[in-house]
Amino acid sequence: MSLVERVLAGDRLALARLLSQIENEETMGLDDLAALYPHTGGAHLVGMTGAPGTGKSTLVNKLVLRMRQAGDKDGESSIRIAVVAVDPSSPFTGGAILGDRIRMRDLAGDPCVFIRSMASRGALGGLARATTGVVQALDAAGFNVIMIETVGAGQAEVDIARTAHTTVVITAPGMGDEVQAIKAGILEIADILVVNKADIPGADNTLRALRATLEMAKPESYSPNDPHRSDLSIEREEESSGWETPVIATIATEGEGVAELILAIENHRTHLQGSGEWAIRERGRIRSELEGLLRETLATRFLQRQPDGRFEEVLEKVLARSLSPRQAVLSMVEGEDE
Amino acid sequence: MSLVERVLAGDRLALARLLSQIENEETMGLDDLAALYPHTGGAHLVGMTGAPGTGKSTLVNKLVLRMRQAGDKDGESSIRIAVVAVDPSSPFTGGAILGDRIRMRDLAGDPCVFIRSMASRGALGGLARATTGVVQALDAAGFNVIMIETVGAGQAEVDIARTAHTTVVITAPGMGDEVQAIKAGILEIADILVVNKADIPGADNTLRALRATLEMAKPESYSPNDPHRSDLSIEREEESSGWETPVIATIATEGEGVAELILAIENHRTHLQGSGEWAIRERGRIRSELEGLLRETLATRFLQRQPDGRFEEVLEKVLARSLSPRQAVLSMVEGEDE
Repeated sequence: MSLVERVLAGDRLALARLLSQIENEETMGLDDLAALYPHTGGAHLVGMTGAPGTGKSTLVNKLVLRMRQAGDKDGESSIRIAVVAVDPSSPFTGGAILGDRIRMRDLAGDPCVFIRSMASRGALGGLARATTGVVQALDAAGFNVIMIETVGAGQAEVDIARTAHTTVVITAPGMGDEVQAIKAGILEIADILVVNKADIPGADNTLRALRATLEMAKPESYSPNDPHRSDLSIEREEESSGWETPVIATIATEGEGVAELILAIENHRTHLQGSGEWAIRERGRIRSELEGLLRETLATRFLQRQPDGRFEEVLEKVLARSLSPRQAVLSMVEGEDE
Repeated sequence: MSLVERVLAGDRLALARLLSQIENEETMGLDDLAALYPHTGGAHLVGMTGAPGTGKSTLVNKLVLRMRQAGDKDGESSIRIAVVAVDPSSPFTGGAILGDRIRMRDLAGDPCVFIRSMASRGALGGLARATTGVVQALDAAGFNVIMIETVGAGQAEVDIARTAHTTVVITAPGMGDEVQAIKAGILEIADILVVNKADIPGADNTLRALRATLEMAKPESYSPNDPHRSDLSIEREEESSGWETPVIATIATEGEGVAELILAIENHRTHLQGSGEWAIRERGRIRSELEGLLRETLATRFLQRQPDGRFEEVLEKVLARSLSPRQAVLSMVEGEDE
């Protein structure tokens, strides 16, 4: 059996090997991914994001555990869940830290759960590209829910908003007030907001402030003619019609609020599918993936066609300030057109 | 006088207009930027980064105020300082929030201080590209120190580490323990670490924990043969030789610790220049800028050469799962080679 066939048959070892090949951008892995692509599209992609210290990993752990138990109880065919833990800190440490690999030992024995930690290999855009590939492989392998867990508050969240069907943003009391939450762009990308560690004093204030801010920030208050609105915000506005972002209090360590969060994730999926917004998000996701791949492919092929040392030569001129970066790039590109 | 001449002569209005043109990627602005490029290279680029709620903006405010006062006191020619506040939340709100624009009113009357808020225009990579251009224009306009202030913990910090000469990471007590700090990749990119709000109970523990973690995380503990180490981590290891990351306690609202921070920033500059690491960072910075510009330029030109609707047609096939994203891009690119 080929690796592709083994992955489709549910072979975990084959899957793990394929994911490594995709992460390392080996041609064999990328070819296999293309062969698997027709089998994708069945998974619900759920982004789980929050700043360090919000207890995000513990919450994901409990969420997966509970979703698996619910599946068993109903006696239906078991739900299969994958977790992709993306750790952008790793360009500096060379790998996802041990804690992430071992933290989910509750789940390690469950054959319907698959956990993968992703670390950046340093290349700009490499992590996002590899994550997309890994998620596609897991989708083809038949996982029903794929959770993409990311650290941080910033560009990473924007990328998730483009990648997942449902984005859950996790915060905790004392992590900054509601104005700070707006500054981090956190409210605008959330389909579901979670205030974890809800037993900490002050949690009520955080919940109240977030709900008030959400109320104020409703899409109706955007000006449709603002030339500075991004394409994404326009998409999101269309999509968000009819969906009221719930704010859910959880205590992940105790499992409190987890059932409510599972329900909210399910509701959001139903909403997306019923309103046609699922298809809109799919299109946006694939468009941005194609654009990114196109940029990478063109640059790689261009540099391969250049004479040896040409790029370094141009770099020296820019360092010496005798060419500007833009002039340098145009001279390389236009030199080839002739 | 041309706009370029006016910018070089210190005309603030001309500078503001140029920066808008650069932000909007207007050809005229980009041409002017190329003309200004030979005048760049004089500024000390200082990245100021930290999660929401750390009091980063207040600290930058006080820092600039104090640096300006110090310049006056010594009777030397006045130091000129620019602040570029990058707000990646803005793809969703359409502009930097008002708070950022008005927060530095202490500095508004000072002709030697220039403040610019940057908002993403939604294009992937657009914000980083525009920020680079704005920083170059300010450099050419003769600002001695340019502070690049960013929100967040994640990819944004990695990008700053490639952009600034000196990266200051700001944290605060209670924002997560030392393990969380490692997860956010925050320690590895910091040339200087600041614990702001040092009057909050528990600040001593945060300081101690950060110092202990820094001690453990010293470059010597990296394995030089690890194939997963990124280029950046290799560069950083070389650079970090001889520099001990200081951990500084500040209370920005009171101005405490600000003088010490200014000294640390100065010391780091002296260290970079004395050790030859300034040149290494310059080369890394310009290399990554050239690569990014090359990718953008090639993709834009490629799409312009494609027949109308070709990209959309390919997108439909990927949506229908009859082509994988990689097959789709290769078919477009190879179709052109023939």
